[in-house]
Amino acid sequence: MSSIQKESMYTLYYAPNTASMVVHLALLEAQAAYQLEKVDFSIRAQKDPAYLALNPQGVVPTLVHEGVAYQETPAILMLLAEHFPDAGLMPAAGSVAHARCREWLFYLSHNLHATYRLWFYPETLGFSDYPSGLKEDLQTRMAGFWDFLEAHLQKNGPYLCGDQLSLADFYLTVLMRWSRHMPRPATGWPALQQLAARVAQRPSWQLMCERESPEPWHPGAPA
Amino acid sequence: MSSIQKESMYTLYYAPNTASMVVHLALLEAQAAYQLEKVDFSIRAQKDPAYLALNPQGVVPTLVHEGVAYQETPAILMLLAEHFPDAGLMPAAGSVAHARCREWLFYLSHNLHATYRLWFYPETLGFSDYPSGLKEDLQTRMAGFWDFLEAHLQKNGPYLCGDQLSLADFYLTVLMRWSRHMPRPATGWPALQQLAARVAQRPSWQLMCERESPEPWHPGAPA
Repeated sequence: MSSIQKESMYTLYYAPNTASMVVHLALLEAQAAYQLEKVDFSIRAQKDPAYLALNPQGVVPTLVHEGVAYQETPAILMLLAEHFPDAGLMPAAGSVAHARCREWLFYLSHNLHATYRLWFYPETLGFSDYPSGLKEDLQTRMAGFWDFLEAHLQKNGPYLCGDQLSLADFYLTVLMRWSRHMPRPATGWPALQQLAARVAQRPSWQLMCERESPEPWHPGAPA
Repeated sequence: MSSIQKESMYTLYYAPNTASMVVHLALLEAQAAYQLEKVDFSIRAQKDPAYLALNPQGVVPTLVHEGVAYQETPAILMLLAEHFPDAGLMPAAGSVAHARCREWLFYLSHNLHATYRLWFYPETLGFSDYPSGLKEDLQTRMAGFWDFLEAHLQKNGPYLCGDQLSLADFYLTVLMRWSRHMPRPATGWPALQQLAARVAQRPSWQLMCERESPEPWHPGAPA
C-alpha cells in the first residue's frame, strides 16, 4: 500500500445496529478505503479512556481520517460528501438541492434520532422503566414524524431530495430500521417503505450487512 | 433599491425568544440585507396555511431568499455561512475547523435543542403536565450537557472552535439563554458564562434585541 493510500484510509469505530451503519454505508457508496474497528458495547468499550480520547461523548460512530477523529453521524456524512464530491452522496455543494439535503439531515437528527434515544434509553430521562403511557406517547410522536415524511415523499419523492438519492435517504433508512419491533414499523407507510426497499437493495447496503452482521431486516420489495 | 439588492434580500419569519434569534444574529453579523416578518404565536399564525406553505412543520424560523423557503435553524446558519464566506460565520469551508464547527451545530441541535423541546412542551410526549420527577430529570440531563460543554471550553476554548468565534457560539448562547429560569442556569458554568457574555456584548446581539424585544437577559460581564 502506498503512503498516499495509507493517508487517505478511513477508520470507522462502529457497533452493529447503531447509527454507525449509515457512515459505513456512505464509505461503501463513496468507494473509500476504510477499515472497521468494532466498539464492544458488552464490555462498555465506548466508555474506555482510549475511546473517550477519540469521542468524548463515548458514543459511536467515530470516523478517523489523517489523524483527526470526527463525531456526530450526520456531520460525518457531510464530511464524506465533501471528501468525495463525485460520489453523488449529496447534490452539488452550493445548490438549493444541497441546502435541502442538509435540512433533511438536521430534521432527521433533531426529531427522529433524538426521539429514538428516549425510546431505547428511558434512563436518558432518569426513568429506570417507562412511566405509564410514555412508551405509547413516544410511538405517537414517531408516527407523527412518519406521517410528515410520508406526505413529503408522496408529493416530492421518491427520495427526500426528489429524484436524487442522497445521504439523507440512507440516514432515514437506518432510522426506519430501528422501528422494526415497534407496533407500527415505519415500513407501514407506503412511500417510506418504497424508499427503504430501494436503499436496502443497493450493493452497499448488502455489503454493509455482510460485514457488520446486524439483526436481519427486510423492508420489502420495491414496486 | 436596485433589482440586484432586491434579489439578494432575505426575509426572516421569526418569533421573539425562539430559535429564530440566532438566524437574526447571523444575518446581522453577515451584514445581509433582510426584512423581518413576525409570526404571531398568540393567534397560532405558525399553523396558518399560508405559513405552512413556507414551513410545513409550522415552526420558526423560516428564511426566504430568492423565492426559496429554508427551514431548520442550524441548516439555515450553514446556508448563511455559505452565502457570506467572508463574514467569519464559520471557519473556511473544507478545513478541519469547519468540520468541527459543523459537528457542534449537530451536537447542539440533537442534544440541547431537542431536550429543551421536552422542557418547554411536555405535550411533546403526550403529557398535559409533567409526571413526578420528569422536570428534575430533564434538568439533570441539561446539566450533563453543560458539564460536557464546560469541560470542552476549559480545555479548548474560549469558543467552541477554539480561538475562532463562530455560528456555533451564537447558537449555544441562544440555547443558554433559554435556561435563565431554570434552577441551574447555564451561566453558572464559568467558561459558558464567559462565552455568552462575549456574544451578548456584540453589536449584533444588541441590535437583534432592539429589533425583537425579547425578554431581557444578562449573562454577566466578560472577564
